[in-house]
Amino acid sequence: MRIARFSIDGTVGFGVVEGGPTDEDGLVLDIIKGHPFAEFERSGHRVPLKAVRLLPPVLPSKVVAIGRNYAAHARELGNEVPDTPVTFFKPSTSVIGDGDAIRYPSISREVHHEAELAVVIGRMCRDVPRERARDVILGYTCANDITARDVQEREKQWARAKGFDTSCPLGPWIETDADPADLAIMCTVNGEQRQLGRTSEMVRTVEDLIVHITESMTLLPQDVILTGTPAGVGPLHAGDEVAVSIEGIGTLTNKVVKA
Amino acid sequence: MRIARFSIDGTVGFGVVEGGPTDEDGLVLDIIKGHPFAEFERSGHRVPLKAVRLLPPVLPSKVVAIGRNYAAHARELGNEVPDTPVTFFKPSTSVIGDGDAIRYPSISREVHHEAELAVVIGRMCRDVPRERARDVILGYTCANDITARDVQEREKQWARAKGFDTSCPLGPWIETDADPADLAIMCTVNGEQRQLGRTSEMVRTVEDLIVHITESMTLLPQDVILTGTPAGVGPLHAGDEVAVSIEGIGTLTNKVVKA
Repeated sequence: MRIARFSIDGTVGFGVVEGGPTDEDGLVLDIIKGHPFAEFERSGHRVPLKAVRLLPPVLPSKVVAIGRNYAAHARELGNEVPDTPVTFFKPSTSVIGDGDAIRYPSISREVHHEAELAVVIGRMCRDVPRERARDVILGYTCANDITARDVQEREKQWARAKGFDTSCPLGPWIETDADPADLAIMCTVNGEQRQLGRTSEMVRTVEDLIVHITESMTLLPQDVILTGTPAGVGPLHAGDEVAVSIEGIGTLTNKVVKA
Repeated sequence: MRIARFSIDGTVGFGVVEGGPTDEDGLVLDIIKGHPFAEFERSGHRVPLKAVRLLPPVLPSKVVAIGRNYAAHARELGNEVPDTPVTFFKPSTSVIGDGDAIRYPSISREVHHEAELAVVIGRMCRDVPRERARDVILGYTCANDITARDVQEREKQWARAKGFDTSCPLGPWIETDADPADLAIMCTVNGEQRQLGRTSEMVRTVEDLIVHITESMTLLPQDVILTGTPAGVGPLHAGDEVAVSIEGIGTLTNKVVKA
């Protein structure tokens, strides 16, 4: 099931996306009564997807992101695969949705795309054992871990390099039925392929990461885990259209604009 | 004015703390109608401070923390004062209040105290010019940037070392009238002094930090800035009572317990 968050005529709601992956023009939203992180049902009241503005599918209290989780990407930036996952935060103020603009930050002259599988947490959890890791997941979406590469190289901690406003596009919706073990993940810029990988190349699996993160901190419903990016990262410029596509989930598209 | 957030009989509210700094037993809370981040007035309905449980004075969407902002502390850990402030996040799930327990994290064997002045943001802001920096501040409180020093040394990014549950005690209340330029700041463990400094020793002032942070990211009301710690950091053990005192603000006290 695909759950989208949207606004129409100033009202915000959730809907279940209906329609096949090939006739995108025909997609409709069956509006949800209740909240997808609690009890809900479909209302049967449908609106065309084209008529709404998609919003970030979640409002995370925190985004916990993992660096260097694809060996080929770690190597392309001259890094080793670390013994423990590189773990950092992106703040809620960095989150935007499908179709929203990535604003080129004034602190940087080299902003990169990083296509990532995003895990959406469905329930409050701590100290999750590996065999229960799937139980705390509501679903998956596409993410772009937009990174000011020059700032990242200059500053020891990545809060500014990876936490600036609009640096965390998420969307277009939450797919609740995906299996994250082996999905194709791609990034294009202006229609040209830049990154291509499979989630099976992750050094640590989604389950590993949930165990790793929750052994020290609580995850809340709507929190998001970014699982690392495959090789092929590169610069974005004002005017570019960047798209992250994940097999079985969908495509997240954003334009880059001057700040 | 000192604004505390508290619970009593299962109800959560804010109150203005009344009474002198020397007769703590006699402090009372004048309960607030409205919200301190918007319009509010004192109700005149008073409860003794001793009768309530103090809560973290704010519920921040993010805590933006600054490392190595006191030269003597940077040196004691063998570090230089950086060209740009070391900037990192602590998540909302790390925040606790005065009197709450710091739970020793299972991922660490060396947890340190770091007494810090905390700045409470009063309004949504971005690209704040230096001369307007004071305008976005609601007030100040005490913070303890609890740090798993061994994890910090092992892991490149500090999300786990400084973001574990209970690693961000804040309190006891927000002082809206303090001048942050030159306040004594102290940390004691079991009554023994461990850290002592003055906020005038900061490499970057509170105003500098607001300019630095907001040139790339939006701060929201209730967001918190931690401004770095003076020299004298050291280990905490289960059973310890750690207290951060800042001149003109108050004392934040927490017990360390086994996880």
